[in-house]
Amino acid sequence: MSQHRKDLLVEVGNFVEQLYQKGVRDVVLSPGSRVAPLALAFARHPQINTKTVSDERSAAFIALGIAQQTNLPVAIACTSGTAALNYAPAVAEAYYQRVPLIVITADRPTEWIDQWDGQTIQQQNIFGKHIKKAYHMPVDLSHEDAKWYRQRIGAEAMCNALEYPSGPIQINWPLREPFYPEEGEHFIYESTPQSTREIIQSEPYLDQETWEEKLIPLFESNKKVLIIAGQQQRNDYIVEYLNQLNVPVVSDIISNYGSVDQAIIHQDVFLTPTVIEELQPDIVITFGMSVISKNLKLFLRKNPPKYQLHIQEAGEVPDPFQSLSTVIRSTPEAFFDQLSDFELSFDDDFLNHWKEADDKVKANKTDFFDLLSFSELEIVNHLINELPENAVLHLANSMSVRYANFIGLQRPDIDVHANRGTSGIDGSTSTAIGHAISDKDRPHFLLTGDLAFFYDRNAFWNNYLPSNLNVLLLNNQGGVIFRMIDGPTRQPELEEYFETEQRTNAHHLAKEFDVHYWGINSKEEFYFNYQEFLTKNDKPSIYEVFTNKNISKNTFKAFKKEGIYTKQ
Amino acid sequence: MSQHRKDLLVEVGNFVEQLYQKGVRDVVLSPGSRVAPLALAFARHPQINTKTVSDERSAAFIALGIAQQTNLPVAIACTSGTAALNYAPAVAEAYYQRVPLIVITADRPTEWIDQWDGQTIQQQNIFGKHIKKAYHMPVDLSHEDAKWYRQRIGAEAMCNALEYPSGPIQINWPLREPFYPEEGEHFIYESTPQSTREIIQSEPYLDQETWEEKLIPLFESNKKVLIIAGQQQRNDYIVEYLNQLNVPVVSDIISNYGSVDQAIIHQDVFLTPTVIEELQPDIVITFGMSVISKNLKLFLRKNPPKYQLHIQEAGEVPDPFQSLSTVIRSTPEAFFDQLSDFELSFDDDFLNHWKEADDKVKANKTDFFDLLSFSELEIVNHLINELPENAVLHLANSMSVRYANFIGLQRPDIDVHANRGTSGIDGSTSTAIGHAISDKDRPHFLLTGDLAFFYDRNAFWNNYLPSNLNVLLLNNQGGVIFRMIDGPTRQPELEEYFETEQRTNAHHLAKEFDVHYWGINSKEEFYFNYQEFLTKNDKPSIYEVFTNKNISKNTFKAFKKEGIYTKQ
Repeated sequence: MSQHRKDLLVEVGNFVEQLYQKGVRDVVLSPGSRVAPLALAFARHPQINTKTVSDERSAAFIALGIAQQTNLPVAIACTSGTAALNYAPAVAEAYYQRVPLIVITADRPTEWIDQWDGQTIQQQNIFGKHIKKAYHMPVDLSHEDAKWYRQRIGAEAMCNALEYPSGPIQINWPLREPFYPEEGEHFIYESTPQSTREIIQSEPYLDQETWEEKLIPLFESNKKVLIIAGQQQRNDYIVEYLNQLNVPVVSDIISNYGSVDQAIIHQDVFLTPTVIEELQPDIVITFGMSVISKNLKLFLRKNPPKYQLHIQEAGEVPDPFQSLSTVIRSTPEAFFDQLSDFELSFDDDFLNHWKEADDKVKANKTDFFDLLSFSELEIVNHLINELPENAVLHLANSMSVRYANFIGLQRPDIDVHANRGTSGIDGSTSTAIGHAISDKDRPHFLLTGDLAFFYDRNAFWNNYLPSNLNVLLLNNQGGVIFRMIDGPTRQPELEEYFETEQRTNAHHLAKEFDVHYWGINSKEEFYFNYQEFLTKNDKPSIYEVFTNKNISKNTFKAFKKEGIYTKQ
Repeated sequence: MSQHRKDLLVEVGNFVEQLYQKGVRDVVLSPGSRVAPLALAFARHPQINTKTVSDERSAAFIALGIAQQTNLPVAIACTSGTAALNYAPAVAEAYYQRVPLIVITADRPTEWIDQWDGQTIQQQNIFGKHIKKAYHMPVDLSHEDAKWYRQRIGAEAMCNALEYPSGPIQINWPLREPFYPEEGEHFIYESTPQSTREIIQSEPYLDQETWEEKLIPLFESNKKVLIIAGQQQRNDYIVEYLNQLNVPVVSDIISNYGSVDQAIIHQDVFLTPTVIEELQPDIVITFGMSVISKNLKLFLRKNPPKYQLHIQEAGEVPDPFQSLSTVIRSTPEAFFDQLSDFELSFDDDFLNHWKEADDKVKANKTDFFDLLSFSELEIVNHLINELPENAVLHLANSMSVRYANFIGLQRPDIDVHANRGTSGIDGSTSTAIGHAISDKDRPHFLLTGDLAFFYDRNAFWNNYLPSNLNVLLLNNQGGVIFRMIDGPTRQPELEEYFETEQRTNAHHLAKEFDVHYWGINSKEEFYFNYQEFLTKNDKPSIYEVFTNKNISKNTFKAFKKEGIYTKQ
């Protein structure tokens, strides 16, 4: 065996073992020649699952979904050239949603960059600011320093990706030919404590003095406290702590805290930007990432609290409410745990005002839809109410997630996901598929509109379609969101340049990829077939509902109007 | 009218007029709210054609095709967020193929970046090194300096994009709400000589002394001269000059010089990397961009000329043959024009060796295919021989373009295009559609494989499908290129991880988008239906041929083997 190939089998094999030791169990490959040694080493590792997805855009979003669902880092690997650029949308989403995506880009050796050779671009730092860090492997396989440095990069990159706030990292690896092992040649999978470096963290608790001298006095003199949960997955300990507090907990649907006792879930409906004194908090406590509710943001910007405490153990802290005053370097779990040690009393009237506003919308919701024509909001209401036990709900951008947030969700058995890191429409279906693939025992529901669905249609172009995927597709033949806002509605170009009217449907796609399909044209058809949609589980299903833009718009506006908060 | 809106209508309107004055006639928009004022200003400009394409990846490649076909700069404009990231593959292709793509990315104002607001990422410099320059507009609409600077950016960016070597530029424009004009409010389209700055160039001729003292003596003492044309569009003046020279002109199919008298078109077939003394040149003259032929590159790296002269008026010069000695800062037209003033004699034997090698392949080609089973190479040979007059041929990566280069093309009426800047499979169909849309009087043929075709299937998801588009799709259910090389063939993972076996076909897609479709399963069916495929021109057509990987591989190898150069 040539020394080059011997080194290759050791270096690539050990790198793959490093990733395995640091938690990588799933790898999504995209085909190519330059990536071959990495692809083979992943495929031949006995404990790693590999999948091949040709469209890198979809591949990266599928990997994102798997990483979110398994709570483990997931690697993607592609060949040299523009392949890596197609990863960029999912990498940005992973960056803002803090998902540890291990992005491996096979590269040509430096000497062939910009020499008019095929599939060769400037791959280093290709993801710009949307990556925690971009690493570059040495091309030399044999020098002892290069061998050490490659292990160091592997350890460094994995630790970096996983440490809070976790996120994507890039490892660009230039590889020289030959890179195919001969028959009987095997990758060496070995690791050392240095190559799989562990990190020992300190406890995230605040000291007693901080509580007694700073935080408790603050709460004692400011009793109108509002908690806002941003996007995250639910932590049951936090639920318990929150249930002990007599404080409204504003829970967008993507916060997954709609089931706590004092949850407020209809803030997007009942709030307006106008000043509402009795709802104005003294202190806002935030944890988690972004919120969907634009009306909540506008309300707080107009009615700012005196203090906003954001709990986040490390990293940059955005300020969507323009009121951030204090960053608490702790975990939400530790913070609420410590808080629960103190007997604090909060303002009951304040809580009641928030509950009344929320309850009014809840009451309206029960009989609002029977009276009206068939609208998208009614469909979303039905979907959410009828979700099977322990289902997972995926919400595409852009109207789907807003509709769902208007309707709200209070069930603790449902997990909700949405690409709200960047709010793109480019990978919602692929992400949902990644989730469903790695969580076969629960039914996964994707609520999506036609633009997001057809944009990411290559989500279906792979050999791993999960039968537990159920797509509810609202097809209004264009982007109805533009009809919801005043500006575009007044332009004669509304349909061509904003809504981008498109007349296609998912019928042919469903046939092509052998997926169950229903095309629904009326309220009667919708309710008649719905049970079948829920129960056919041998293949993925698409329930495509053709809706009327204007009816949907009017219903949405009417629902909002009825729910707006007015002083009792 | 508010001052903000008044300024907006002037500033955006004037910017659009600037682009128009500098040659922009076509704009491909993608929908979004942030981009609204730009979209409306483009749509309402009386001399600009606007199209809306939802998938930004496809939109940018369509724009690339229009720019190549019209020889004019084309603008693309998208909303904030990951939309711009989806432009990246086409932007890289434009960069390496030197196409002036005007990439306009609407952005949120700086104050909302990284504040957990929707569709907000770090958009400045998002294309890294694959852009000639990234510009950033001031958000302020009213200050006089900001107004001047915006015009300056417009002028600077357009001049930069267009000056040789032309290429893509990014203009990132943060826009504050409100950005929708009211009824009766109009964009102002005005320009000044400063805002549409002209550039006056000097002549690209070399001085007489350089010719007489340097170049002519060089040619007189080194008579084995080989001209190699890289990727470019044909210039008829250059054809005339080349026809006067007794020198072999190596013309890959993407060079568009296969019709010159001394053209060599089968270099990829008859060359091997071994040392072949009688074919080794003293001087190589190159012009244009990349070549496809890997065997030509390997041959010259092993048989290097004493000198390689590359003619390129400005910009970086790659060195694919590892022999670049002299860069001539002139245009090929001016250089060959000046060269033709001297009566030079070259080595006839050298020319004859090259011609003999090429002629042998040409002779073989005539009756090679009748003897064998139905292979992809035969299909490509038929396609190329039977192209209608004045057709345009588009070659997808990766095997399609190689097959076509093996077959070669000598017809001066055919234009050939391929995304060989980065050699990606991500936008071949969209690029071909961009060409066909803007060149309705000629038939456009796309030769593509199944991976490239399905990767870019959203090329069909728009309202502008051109009826003059004819797709010949070779469906071998995976990436057959991996079977052509020895390394992957020996791996048990060949089908799953390299070829990425996929069983879909274009039948459903053709139905969905109302495109003529033929599914061809045998040689007989192929020839029986082919004429109909050529003549049905009321809609786009897809001629999908299901081929056998092993037969195609063996035929390809046999063709190469028979053609290899051996000394006469």
